[in-house]
Amino acid sequence: MTFRRLALIGIGLIGSSLARAARAQGLAEEIVCSTRREATRDTARSLGIVDHAYENPAEAAAGADLVLLCTPVGTYADLSAAIAPVLAPGAILSDVGSVKQAVVRDVGPNVPDGVHFIPGHPIAGTEHSGPESGFAELFQGRWCILTPPPAADPAAVARLRAFWEKVGSQVVEMDPAHHDKVLAITSHLPHLIAYTIVGTATDLEETLRSEVIKYSAGGFRDFTRIAASDPVMWRDIFLDNREAVLEMLGRFSEDLAYLQRAIRWGEGDKLHELFTRTRAIRRGIIEAKQA
Amino acid sequence: MTFRRLALIGIGLIGSSLARAARAQGLAEEIVCSTRREATRDTARSLGIVDHAYENPAEAAAGADLVLLCTPVGTYADLSAAIAPVLAPGAILSDVGSVKQAVVRDVGPNVPDGVHFIPGHPIAGTEHSGPESGFAELFQGRWCILTPPPAADPAAVARLRAFWEKVGSQVVEMDPAHHDKVLAITSHLPHLIAYTIVGTATDLEETLRSEVIKYSAGGFRDFTRIAASDPVMWRDIFLDNREAVLEMLGRFSEDLAYLQRAIRWGEGDKLHELFTRTRAIRRGIIEAKQA
Repeated sequence: MTFRRLALIGIGLIGSSLARAARAQGLAEEIVCSTRREATRDTARSLGIVDHAYENPAEAAAGADLVLLCTPVGTYADLSAAIAPVLAPGAILSDVGSVKQAVVRDVGPNVPDGVHFIPGHPIAGTEHSGPESGFAELFQGRWCILTPPPAADPAAVARLRAFWEKVGSQVVEMDPAHHDKVLAITSHLPHLIAYTIVGTATDLEETLRSEVIKYSAGGFRDFTRIAASDPVMWRDIFLDNREAVLEMLGRFSEDLAYLQRAIRWGEGDKLHELFTRTRAIRRGIIEAKQA
Repeated sequence: MTFRRLALIGIGLIGSSLARAARAQGLAEEIVCSTRREATRDTARSLGIVDHAYENPAEAAAGADLVLLCTPVGTYADLSAAIAPVLAPGAILSDVGSVKQAVVRDVGPNVPDGVHFIPGHPIAGTEHSGPESGFAELFQGRWCILTPPPAADPAAVARLRAFWEKVGSQVVEMDPAHHDKVLAITSHLPHLIAYTIVGTATDLEETLRSEVIKYSAGGFRDFTRIAASDPVMWRDIFLDNREAVLEMLGRFSEDLAYLQRAIRWGEGDKLHELFTRTRAIRRGIIEAKQA
């Protein structure tokens, strides 16, 4: 069930956590990565989480039987074109990107015949970036969504599924469009809103801004954690899941206007009704052990 | 420096945490509470955190030299009227409410001569409610804002300040209007937005809603925690800090519309610029040890 050579294209939070988890579980004989910046390669090497760190993604992908794209999704088109010539027949090409339709669109046309292209997305992360922030337990108890194309080879899907299960995830298969819709509300909209409110605070007059930091324990600090996530990664997600995000944002804005009106007109019953209803979802999340 | 009798009007998360902390630090010879529901009184007694639990707030306040209102702010007008006749000259009357101008408006007129009315607000809490959810360490390292009126007795203010310091807080004095403005952005708006997005998810079609719970680790779950806070308390806060909340909400909505437009038109540079800027506030919060 192990892979001969696991190539991680990108070695940030997710890539480096995968390297650690794959090593800990003995899922690959050799683990290599590629990353553009020399400092990042040095860090990956000194952490001892990869056997080789390359600048050129094609050198990492050459001879690998599992290649995982672990960079911001905006880079996938170029990266997949760059590694396509060296991808071995029978190899699995997957990714960890937070959008899936755009990945099919950008990577799909570059995949050589005989290579199994099975997009994936682990629902796991922290607000920290870079290889030093990864840890082997990141995927424990978290979901990993795979979006295999209809004609995907069942054996290859099973191999990739087993890989994610071994690093601790529960695996589920989904259609890419449905994935993007679910993630728009569970992840993309929350991030957009967190970035917005922290931005609103940033624009306050200087004295008020320093007090926002001082008294952030009242709720604001939880948003700053989310709004500290990687800027390039999130820029790409919003650009690549535009329709689903705008749809959910439309619903959110309507609902916010409704509450705004209730506050302005002193309609406490409307506020109380919503604030009571939202507690049920929290209970559901606790029961689903995702809290 | 200790009080003879500490009366907690209301024994939820904050009241019960104060009872525990005051007992642990030996800040009062006797600690009593009042609360409407019999079941809550039984819980408070069985937890052993109060010496007496009364139904009638006036019985709790009688003979107390420190009375703290620890109920939703919407109850303060009636409660202060009810306890006013028994408040002893020289006693300190304070509260823990999340708005301060409304407290001055609702409680101020009921305060008898000779009683020191010094509103307060500990910036601490969790999403849990009820006496069983309190803990003595809740205020450790957190700020407590006092809003003494201009004519307040300095000795009484110093006594109340020492009380909060002994339970672990850093104390700062502020004007009530300024308090309400700062809290509108650091606490009230974040809660309103969290309630809204969780409400938006609640309204999704059934299948999508169950998936929202399942895949909430992508960011959504952090909002559900905030949106599980006490509904009555939060209804009162929004009604009582209407102007400041609507002002901050207006800024937020403008900023959200700006991002919405950037997403629609594919303006990645605008997204990236904001997402980079918001990281600085997170660093500030970590440096201020409020993360």
